[in-house]
Amino acid sequence: MLRVGIVGYGNLGRGTDIAIKSRKDIRCVGIFTRRRAESVRSITGVPVYGIAELPRFEKQIDVLINCGGSAGDMEENIPLLLERFNTVDSFDTHAKIPEYFKRANVAAEKNRTVCIYSAGWDPGLFSIARLIFDCVLPNGCSYTFWGKGVSQGHTNAIKRIDGVKNATAYTVPDADALRLISQGKTPKLKAENLHSRECYVVIENGANENIIRDKIVNMPNYFSDYKTDVFFISEAEFENNYGNPSHCGKVIRNGKTFLESKVSLGFSLKTASNPEFTGEILVSCARAADRLVKSGIYGAFNLADIPLKYLSDKTDDEIRKEFL
Amino acid sequence: MLRVGIVGYGNLGRGTDIAIKSRKDIRCVGIFTRRRAESVRSITGVPVYGIAELPRFEKQIDVLINCGGSAGDMEENIPLLLERFNTVDSFDTHAKIPEYFKRANVAAEKNRTVCIYSAGWDPGLFSIARLIFDCVLPNGCSYTFWGKGVSQGHTNAIKRIDGVKNATAYTVPDADALRLISQGKTPKLKAENLHSRECYVVIENGANENIIRDKIVNMPNYFSDYKTDVFFISEAEFENNYGNPSHCGKVIRNGKTFLESKVSLGFSLKTASNPEFTGEILVSCARAADRLVKSGIYGAFNLADIPLKYLSDKTDDEIRKEFL
Repeated sequence: MLRVGIVGYGNLGRGTDIAIKSRKDIRCVGIFTRRRAESVRSITGVPVYGIAELPRFEKQIDVLINCGGSAGDMEENIPLLLERFNTVDSFDTHAKIPEYFKRANVAAEKNRTVCIYSAGWDPGLFSIARLIFDCVLPNGCSYTFWGKGVSQGHTNAIKRIDGVKNATAYTVPDADALRLISQGKTPKLKAENLHSRECYVVIENGANENIIRDKIVNMPNYFSDYKTDVFFISEAEFENNYGNPSHCGKVIRNGKTFLESKVSLGFSLKTASNPEFTGEILVSCARAADRLVKSGIYGAFNLADIPLKYLSDKTDDEIRKEFL
Repeated sequence: MLRVGIVGYGNLGRGTDIAIKSRKDIRCVGIFTRRRAESVRSITGVPVYGIAELPRFEKQIDVLINCGGSAGDMEENIPLLLERFNTVDSFDTHAKIPEYFKRANVAAEKNRTVCIYSAGWDPGLFSIARLIFDCVLPNGCSYTFWGKGVSQGHTNAIKRIDGVKNATAYTVPDADALRLISQGKTPKLKAENLHSRECYVVIENGANENIIRDKIVNMPNYFSDYKTDVFFISEAEFENNYGNPSHCGKVIRNGKTFLESKVSLGFSLKTASNPEFTGEILVSCARAADRLVKSGIYGAFNLADIPLKYLSDKTDDEIRKEFL
């Protein structure tokens, strides 16, 4: 049995806790939280500990699944975790991935541990789809569509605005772009032309809708480059209609062979629960982390760096028979 | 520059010859044919040699792309090729893959060479899609759809019937099954329920249509398990309408997380030229073969056994920046 621990018990931590239940070869030793341990209850009944207790589990945990906190927290904590543990995470601040890799790789090589990073669905499954599509179809254009689904980063950015009580920001693919690209066309469009943003916002009593709308639609890096719609709703409506954890996405590459024969490649995903499905991916990656360590290979790796069979519980013989 | 050779110059050999032209880091040293070299002309102007001349190219070729002959030929020849060369192939007789692997692996380990096998689109890209889908969604059903497109194996089986002058057999996905499965349903259906066969046949003067139709639709392993339609057409009609090299396919996995949240995963491909696109995949795999050899790793490998970045011409840094 592969023994894993979970660090952090927000939506993703809960999704991971649940995902472990569908694996016969993996069991969860404990959940480690920054909150008071007594205030957190595992959805599957796994014991919950304060994060300070983690070091004494060094010999009882093969791989830690890092579901902890914001991007900033993860960057800061990863070298510390890698001192004693192998880790898996879905670090998803795209622009900061090279820096995150560097910190994790230095720590993992020094401590002879393994970090599998950015291993959710995007970055993660979609990353290897984009890579393999580029390898086998060098002459082409790749497009990634996200949604319709909640963007946690954009949601948090709205929540930081004064006067906002609650909010959800959806990423919505542009229907025209999606149609054209699904037909094999290769329009010159950036991510911000492929998507719009829909924001559902509950404001504090007395807050000004127009001021808040302006702040949202003009927020650089998050909304200013996108067509953004802001809808103000009541708290009751928010609770009833905007807690849906579903998400979806597509990677499409359209191109041509050297003799101009058209090729279209697609990778798509649809999940009723984003955190539960991301948890499923992370749990599979725990197998890969363990396998690397047992092969004496240390450092930080993404899904393009490791044989995909390392994520499986099947033997090489079974893979040849069942999947080839 | 990675120096490759091509063994065999049928449709796939030509597709591979063409695919090399879209790579800046790869050049083709020569084409090796079992026919008289003078009778074969490379579509890109690469020199053509008789297969007997291959051994003297041992030091001039880094990787051989094996596009040669029928399944039986490939199984017989692979140990011999691996004595001097690293190879890449798209060996696609699914049931014989374990045996083919064994022969290739023994030869490659003994000679310190590398064979990347079954690395087309199916087996190949679709194999790793099926594997990764199984890893991240253990509770689900996977379905593979091929077509509409020509099945070379089924075409050849018809051509062996007495009185058949020419033939093309298409694999056609069942529209109802495809619709249900695309909607996330998980019907209990085998490959033969997911597809039908359409056969276009030109017969010799005086041959009997009914006898030939019976032989086709009752042929075990090939047609007897499938709904099969046979159409008899004239030679002129055949030449005009049934030489289309396009193909397509989809892998779909529908399932649920442990808490019953629905997930659907898809991998799809559409190509106007099956041999040209398969050539593109094989050429990318030549990079991987070379990289394994340079790392001192020998043996026979499929796409699930090797990091996907080995197929790329990008550095690790570029992959982290551009694809993650």
